[in-house]
Amino acid sequence: MSAAEKTVPTKAKKVSEIQQWDIETDVAIVGFGGAGSSAAIEAADAGVTVHIFEASSAAGGSTALSGGEVYLGGNGGTAMQRQFGFDDQSADMEKYLLMQHGPQSDEAKVAAYVDGGVAHFDWLVDKNIPFKQSFLDERVVEPMTDDCLIYSGNEKTWPEIEHCKPAPRAHVVQMAGMGAGKVLMQHLQKAVEDRGVNIHYDARALCLIIDEADSIVGIVVRIDGKELNVKAQGGVILCAGGFVMNEEMVKQYAPKLTRCNIPTGNPGDTGSGIQMGMSVGAAAINMHEGFASIPFYPPSTLTFGMIVTDKGQRFINEDAYHGRVGTALLEQNSERIYFIVDVDAYGDYEKLNFMNADVVATGDSIEELEQELKLPKSCLTHTMKLYNEFAEQGEDPMFHKQPAWLRPLEAPFVALDITPGRGAIFPYFTLGGLDTKIAGEVLKVDGTVIDGLYAAGRTSCGIPRRGSGYNSGISIGDATFFGRQAGIAAAARAKESQVSDTAA
Amino acid sequence: MSAAEKTVPTKAKKVSEIQQWDIETDVAIVGFGGAGSSAAIEAADAGVTVHIFEASSAAGGSTALSGGEVYLGGNGGTAMQRQFGFDDQSADMEKYLLMQHGPQSDEAKVAAYVDGGVAHFDWLVDKNIPFKQSFLDERVVEPMTDDCLIYSGNEKTWPEIEHCKPAPRAHVVQMAGMGAGKVLMQHLQKAVEDRGVNIHYDARALCLIIDEADSIVGIVVRIDGKELNVKAQGGVILCAGGFVMNEEMVKQYAPKLTRCNIPTGNPGDTGSGIQMGMSVGAAAINMHEGFASIPFYPPSTLTFGMIVTDKGQRFINEDAYHGRVGTALLEQNSERIYFIVDVDAYGDYEKLNFMNADVVATGDSIEELEQELKLPKSCLTHTMKLYNEFAEQGEDPMFHKQPAWLRPLEAPFVALDITPGRGAIFPYFTLGGLDTKIAGEVLKVDGTVIDGLYAAGRTSCGIPRRGSGYNSGISIGDATFFGRQAGIAAAARAKESQVSDTAA
Repeated sequence: MSAAEKTVPTKAKKVSEIQQWDIETDVAIVGFGGAGSSAAIEAADAGVTVHIFEASSAAGGSTALSGGEVYLGGNGGTAMQRQFGFDDQSADMEKYLLMQHGPQSDEAKVAAYVDGGVAHFDWLVDKNIPFKQSFLDERVVEPMTDDCLIYSGNEKTWPEIEHCKPAPRAHVVQMAGMGAGKVLMQHLQKAVEDRGVNIHYDARALCLIIDEADSIVGIVVRIDGKELNVKAQGGVILCAGGFVMNEEMVKQYAPKLTRCNIPTGNPGDTGSGIQMGMSVGAAAINMHEGFASIPFYPPSTLTFGMIVTDKGQRFINEDAYHGRVGTALLEQNSERIYFIVDVDAYGDYEKLNFMNADVVATGDSIEELEQELKLPKSCLTHTMKLYNEFAEQGEDPMFHKQPAWLRPLEAPFVALDITPGRGAIFPYFTLGGLDTKIAGEVLKVDGTVIDGLYAAGRTSCGIPRRGSGYNSGISIGDATFFGRQAGIAAAARAKESQVSDTAA
Repeated sequence: MSAAEKTVPTKAKKVSEIQQWDIETDVAIVGFGGAGSSAAIEAADAGVTVHIFEASSAAGGSTALSGGEVYLGGNGGTAMQRQFGFDDQSADMEKYLLMQHGPQSDEAKVAAYVDGGVAHFDWLVDKNIPFKQSFLDERVVEPMTDDCLIYSGNEKTWPEIEHCKPAPRAHVVQMAGMGAGKVLMQHLQKAVEDRGVNIHYDARALCLIIDEADSIVGIVVRIDGKELNVKAQGGVILCAGGFVMNEEMVKQYAPKLTRCNIPTGNPGDTGSGIQMGMSVGAAAINMHEGFASIPFYPPSTLTFGMIVTDKGQRFINEDAYHGRVGTALLEQNSERIYFIVDVDAYGDYEKLNFMNADVVATGDSIEELEQELKLPKSCLTHTMKLYNEFAEQGEDPMFHKQPAWLRPLEAPFVALDITPGRGAIFPYFTLGGLDTKIAGEVLKVDGTVIDGLYAAGRTSCGIPRRGSGYNSGISIGDATFFGRQAGIAAAARAKESQVSDTAA
């Protein structure tokens, strides 16, 4: 059975099938997460009526479950970056993002995102979202503290370091501990409520409504067991998340992610928004890609260690971002992957680790470790010898780990098993979605716009397009930035139609 | 700009826009290659009228440009396999194909394909397609001779060899030299012509025609500069090839293939069939995958050599199928990939090679070769030492190259540069397409069938789903086998509608 056969029908209704309109609005938004709330704020600020339909009983979406990091920079730096002396030029950030996402980058979107980054940070601050005036110069997935500015990607690792001046770009919302996304969402939710937006919880969007000219004119939602027809003069904005929670869709579209084990998102990430778009001929793109991580720091000391296959071969600079390392793990032709560390690198692993990898061998010499791991004779021994010889000189000619994380490893050694599927934590989520223009207009495969339909957040395909190039904060940055653009565009379309109605 | 913005509009027309029907048929087929001809033969044999619309001025499609290999087996073996003593059990072939294509396999399709393989071979023979009674037990991409049966995948390589009893399954159409696909197509074309099928050359399909109930009722074609409306009672079968010739679509949907350099297919492989399907809400799946090869044999002696990265590391068993090796090359974190051989393995390379890789270094010792290649000190030397130690015992504990291809390599050495983008030939084509059921019915993303629409060949997503699991002959096997199913299904639907017309 093909995956599609198991998913929920989302076939669009024709306007001729609609007996009555139960709700009329200028803009209808599906999903009350980071993208939906940003769209609602902008549309309301443009002076049009807005209804949000959220399938769950509370606002938040996956944004509320996130670390509350927003990846922004460019134009000489955000207010926060400048305060700590980072002169973040747009050319560096743009080149960096294009390197990250490779041939499938949307260059126009990247340019718009970089150009608008400074203003977007100010917009978030204006919504009373708290950012502490601080820069935390540590290797962390998220701060454990309430600090703000961090390096959250591959800015300081090879090969990016050789091409783009690094700057810390993740702006973390202020909250002690991890998971500041909920603070971010509290403030976005309040901004939405303050603007008198009509919010419907436990309201499931079922399908789009399409007119004779193939324009989207509304949406059918189910509230309290009743199907309601919503007319949306300006358009419908799909901000319903990605599809990481739809096991069949992941298997069909992003099979490499099936080896990960912690789907990262909210239960509503079932791909329903993407499916609604596809049901009216929208192009879903980049569907095979996803974020896949092995969150091996803290403790950051593990970065001094060495990651090897069951051939005893290294394959990546261990100082790369955890998402790049996780993505590379999935690509290895190897039945096991090990993290090899010495006692100093092991450090506080037992206390701090959250990747949950087991110690599977220890050795008073590398030969002993090699034997205990049942690796082919001398393969790991040689790798270690070579690594140490170069590390002694602060060099890693093979994988270009930077000098800050290079030193010879010394016996005794410890091996952690980080093979996908063997207990360690591999969070993942999807990076494919509806093809959209900068303002969120959804595109058909032939490049024409579906009139009246917008998408943002992980329902669309945005800035992040490869697991190997992901940076913490780029999803929330993308969702809120392009959510705003969609809100502005749909509001403008509503106003145009009001003018033409008046004229007629 | 998103890729979609550059493609040709394929938006479906509504039946209400159609002024008159210029052609009326039971079954309309787009594309006269392997899939289209097989569909036409079956539909004609079922006694319905058939029109084929071929965009170019001759039959053939990519099938005619292929090696004329058809990958078939199971049920104890085809007539050809049995003749040479191969008892090819369905369980082995099925397991093998599922290993090849991994989590994205369509299990139902694989089962149907294996189950119908013996009969499909007989069907081809019945169409007078010549197969010589011969088995060529050599490592070849295609026979240079007119021989028939060959091993054309990873049947005898690790890990498949440990799980599925190997059998040669590529049945190569008889013709001296490479490119027997044209002989295959000549006979299929003749079978189509013999059945009185209406064939239109230089006839470009522009868009589907859809009725009020969202059924496909026909297609618009352009012939002699005129747009003609074709009514198809039984349905439209899209056999218009894949999208390898559409650079923007490849970049958007299958970015990893952009590093290859020889798009393999016919100029009509622009994705137009896939786009027509998507325009009416069809799900396109597996769009990121493709065949990517480095055709490094002949001479097969190169298989004795060693493939290494710019870290001097091996990464694959060199006796794997050229498509698996090519796919693995694209996944390496390495700026260069080298084939390291000794004089014996180099053998007739200069005479026989068609991969076109340059000799970039030679060395009287491995240390000298390592230096000449500017590799980090001792990395290649160690790899060679270890390889030779194990090869001496007929073992390859790291990558499991089989004993037949293992022997120590001896100085002097030669290095060929097989880095993608550095001159060597990397053929590629796409493996994504419309999601279909076994009988070719095209599916929407919600799993419902698009009434009246069928697809086969590379317009659909068939048996082959991963470059790493491709076998020569699986595309032609898939296209002809599932083309037939689509022809049978559309003919049956035409007959049903005739019955209901009569009843009414």
